[in-house]
Amino acid sequence: MCEAQMNDRLAALRAGMAAAGVDGFLVPRSDEHLGEYVPASGERLRWISGFTGSAGIALVLRDRAVLWTDGRYTTQARQQTDPAAWELRHLADDPPAAWMALHAKGLRIGHDPWLHAEPALARFTEAGVTLVPLHPNPLDAAWADRPAPPEAPLRAHGVEFAGEAALDKRARLARELGADAVLLADAHSVAWLLNLRGADLANTPLALAFAILHADASVQLFLHAPHRAAAVAAHLGNGVSVAGREVLPDALRALAGRRVRVDAEATPAALLATLREAGAELIPGEDPVRLPRACKNATEQQGAREAQRKDAVALVRFLAWFAAEAPKGALSEVAAAARLLEFRREVPGFAGESFPAISGAGEDAAVIHYRATAATDRAIRPDECFLLDSGGQYPEGTTDVTRTVWTGPGPAPAELRARFTAVLRGHVALATLRFPEGVAGPHLDAIARRPLWDMGLDYDHGTGHGIGSFLSVHEGPVSISRAAKPVPIRAGMILSDEPGFYLPGQYGIRIENLLLVGEAPRLPDQARPFLCFETLTLAPYSRALLDAALLTPAERAWVDAYHARVLAEVGPALDPAARAWLEAETRPL
Amino acid sequence: MCEAQMNDRLAALRAGMAAAGVDGFLVPRSDEHLGEYVPASGERLRWISGFTGSAGIALVLRDRAVLWTDGRYTTQARQQTDPAAWELRHLADDPPAAWMALHAKGLRIGHDPWLHAEPALARFTEAGVTLVPLHPNPLDAAWADRPAPPEAPLRAHGVEFAGEAALDKRARLARELGADAVLLADAHSVAWLLNLRGADLANTPLALAFAILHADASVQLFLHAPHRAAAVAAHLGNGVSVAGREVLPDALRALAGRRVRVDAEATPAALLATLREAGAELIPGEDPVRLPRACKNATEQQGAREAQRKDAVALVRFLAWFAAEAPKGALSEVAAAARLLEFRREVPGFAGESFPAISGAGEDAAVIHYRATAATDRAIRPDECFLLDSGGQYPEGTTDVTRTVWTGPGPAPAELRARFTAVLRGHVALATLRFPEGVAGPHLDAIARRPLWDMGLDYDHGTGHGIGSFLSVHEGPVSISRAAKPVPIRAGMILSDEPGFYLPGQYGIRIENLLLVGEAPRLPDQARPFLCFETLTLAPYSRALLDAALLTPAERAWVDAYHARVLAEVGPALDPAARAWLEAETRPL
Repeated sequence: MCEAQMNDRLAALRAGMAAAGVDGFLVPRSDEHLGEYVPASGERLRWISGFTGSAGIALVLRDRAVLWTDGRYTTQARQQTDPAAWELRHLADDPPAAWMALHAKGLRIGHDPWLHAEPALARFTEAGVTLVPLHPNPLDAAWADRPAPPEAPLRAHGVEFAGEAALDKRARLARELGADAVLLADAHSVAWLLNLRGADLANTPLALAFAILHADASVQLFLHAPHRAAAVAAHLGNGVSVAGREVLPDALRALAGRRVRVDAEATPAALLATLREAGAELIPGEDPVRLPRACKNATEQQGAREAQRKDAVALVRFLAWFAAEAPKGALSEVAAAARLLEFRREVPGFAGESFPAISGAGEDAAVIHYRATAATDRAIRPDECFLLDSGGQYPEGTTDVTRTVWTGPGPAPAELRARFTAVLRGHVALATLRFPEGVAGPHLDAIARRPLWDMGLDYDHGTGHGIGSFLSVHEGPVSISRAAKPVPIRAGMILSDEPGFYLPGQYGIRIENLLLVGEAPRLPDQARPFLCFETLTLAPYSRALLDAALLTPAERAWVDAYHARVLAEVGPALDPAARAWLEAETRPL
Repeated sequence: MCEAQMNDRLAALRAGMAAAGVDGFLVPRSDEHLGEYVPASGERLRWISGFTGSAGIALVLRDRAVLWTDGRYTTQARQQTDPAAWELRHLADDPPAAWMALHAKGLRIGHDPWLHAEPALARFTEAGVTLVPLHPNPLDAAWADRPAPPEAPLRAHGVEFAGEAALDKRARLARELGADAVLLADAHSVAWLLNLRGADLANTPLALAFAILHADASVQLFLHAPHRAAAVAAHLGNGVSVAGREVLPDALRALAGRRVRVDAEATPAALLATLREAGAELIPGEDPVRLPRACKNATEQQGAREAQRKDAVALVRFLAWFAAEAPKGALSEVAAAARLLEFRREVPGFAGESFPAISGAGEDAAVIHYRATAATDRAIRPDECFLLDSGGQYPEGTTDVTRTVWTGPGPAPAELRARFTAVLRGHVALATLRFPEGVAGPHLDAIARRPLWDMGLDYDHGTGHGIGSFLSVHEGPVSISRAAKPVPIRAGMILSDEPGFYLPGQYGIRIENLLLVGEAPRLPDQARPFLCFETLTLAPYSRALLDAALLTPAERAWVDAYHARVLAEVGPALDPAARAWLEAETRPL
């Protein structure tokens, strides 16, 4: 996309703004489901700005345009946007509402109320702008060749993977609704509740759908191209009615006089307004699916272990292949990611990547959510760092793993090894933590950072996120981040443990495993229940980057035990060459 | 106080409730300044329930009475209240609003709006009770022999201690008010702003006062017995007018039409109502004194170091004396605390204890905020744990220190030493932390708990609190606690570091130093500013309780270096016997 074309888009949007009588227009990253990932038809932020990251919001004014992203995307946003057209800001350090209070006070700012939650909009109103809802919105009007909404096939997510029949889930949640009905705008919640999967998004196996769960456990399901549901009619059963997304407002109006639970943070403002205008009694309450979805049941936990083992075979095969090929200097970032995908495709049940692999060599790995494309691809050179963050979707579970390796053939510099080892020490410190019930993500973030902090270093992203079960690779409500809400961590949650260190222009380090939260074995002195983590991910840490002299005896013992486990669980599935490599890589430090 | 007398009080309050037409009455711990400490005239919670702790709230209904306290006071509340009259609840685990939603829905609950902040009351309203403001209130009416409000002399807090003239403070804050005036209901804020001290409270050297700071830097000061201000008239100067507390409502009504900044969390609901009814424009904003008060200037920082050194001489003299006397078995908790107070009285400038010393032997130390009195006093026996948490007020600064020691003459049990050492390791882990700007108290709490968590142990109180400069021993806005708001830690703050472990019925361990936050020396690799702690408190850790074999080499080196510093800074001020004891206690591990 050349700059002239991008500027045409800005001009077209500005013409639409003028016609609508507004001074600005808000372009969020999210679509009508307010989630992190959107289909091609929902890539509004990318269309207007060129920025492809998964978090951001833009404000287009008459004579300036501002894009906010977070620390993971600072470098990427700079590379992908036209500096003559776009100003870049940090979501946390200089948030949109504070910026508007200084620079947009009194202006009339248009927004599509299907694309924002009310609490987010309220912050802008408090900042002193006048919000003007526009639906349909001027960006969609300007986007002439906008793709059609996806209509991929639906499929049942069998109880052998889900661990609980949809009918049981519906009945269980309906009993505890505290209302006549609840509106679910989060497509992940709909997928979990109905044990329904799809392919409307590139990497998350769900159908973009809304649902209303009633107190009698019946469900109204709303989605684009509802004829797709015919294929899963038997699975859905009689208690689930299916309709097109366009009739959702009518269904909400039919709730006049009823008590309707809504999660304002997770629901488009337009739907709340419809309910309110219809005279429904709004009961504020969290999306009731969020917590049960995050706490995996025994079947899902066993599935997660199995998915990790299967995925590990592909990753270890790749790492062994990479260790042999990389020193020759003939690989590229795109080629490496493609080779890993080939290995994953050989895994039974593989249903696609859980996100586009982040395959970054040298300075590219310092772009925290780098995506290698034909345009950015570069050779992977001997004697540099290579970071690979990737994951797979399997019916048993979703995986997400990062390893940073040294291409060789020479040794890695001591400074790099010291930093890699500090990242690893933080990663191990979190993985080995025991903690009482009630502790939340923000309380544990510092545990993983301390070894870096001791060296005056840090990383500008959270330490961990939740992950779904054959669902999204990023899942709430818990996040190991200082910015997260203090939602207590509970048994059954799966969280990532991924500290890192990034030196812009030079290299990036990240080490990521998934951890399953469980009840800690009771110690003799223990007075109350404690939780602990079970490491799910199985892949060796780079020996070339690890400086064992910088580990404590306990850390060293933990790494040795983990490596022995990796060899025992993955080794038998490997060919002799890969197995020999794994044996060497996992021998005691 | 016998149970019959206490029941008469409950009956008298209930008669007053009936006369006022309410079903219940809320009795908070705080007085009109909403602070932690109150004068005898404000000890309403103690008068009605017998509970003497510094945190709690009671709800007296027609046929039941409930007292909420936190984990520090669970045991104490059980000991001090009549189980036939009072039900006890945990403030965090079963908070008042949630309890009311279940047990008091629809009831008319009286409260004195001078004794509660609006946001706290709002939670009760949301719980479904109908709040009825009653001022004067039925408890005060029933309290026949209620003491008169204090009217202790006022005195200037010289700039040689405060580091900034009151006139400069007033001008600085007035410039940044963003309003025509600000109402200060927190007496600590008034004391800091005017460099004014007093003796209205037993352990905090301030006068109970309200103030209005105007945008022209003038101040209206309101206090009981305003004639007291004559003694400091020259210090206050022309810009400060003084009046009786009873005219504060009139002064607020005179702000009709003006923009008045108020901190709803720190202001009695009655005062907000007066401002609102008068037609003032309320500008919500934090008490503007809170942050500058917490961030000590260079003079206050130097004063804190000096106050700690002086206080350490008294404490080390005590510890040496105690080490000689305790094995004989002739001491009591009250006598030990009295002896420490005698040593402190010999320190130049000592202006009283910063709180009643917590002097607990054996099982008494498991009562986290135990107070030894004539009624509870017990002998300190050979071969047991003794915990002493105490502090002093000096014009240079306020101190707060806890040491747990072993009375001997026999050795301490291995299990006890292991637990003491775990507490010490957590204490050192926090003291040695470096962290980037933006990190807040809730993010660091786990750092001090990890060694205990690893053993399945924990403690039911926060890890640290702020401390004033010749002001309250507990000071906001930062608290190293998971329950605290995430207010970023800043250079100049003084925070306590006091992990512990308590085995009810057996013993209690706590180790507490004060830490001064400063900018960390820049490391070669460092990309942005980091903060670190300077340990202010100087006193040896009990050798008899410490198991050096359980320390890492780095922890051991830190303790050795700290002990060497204690000897170097405190040793020269000691008599030969105490010095010899300190030398032995601080020799390398």
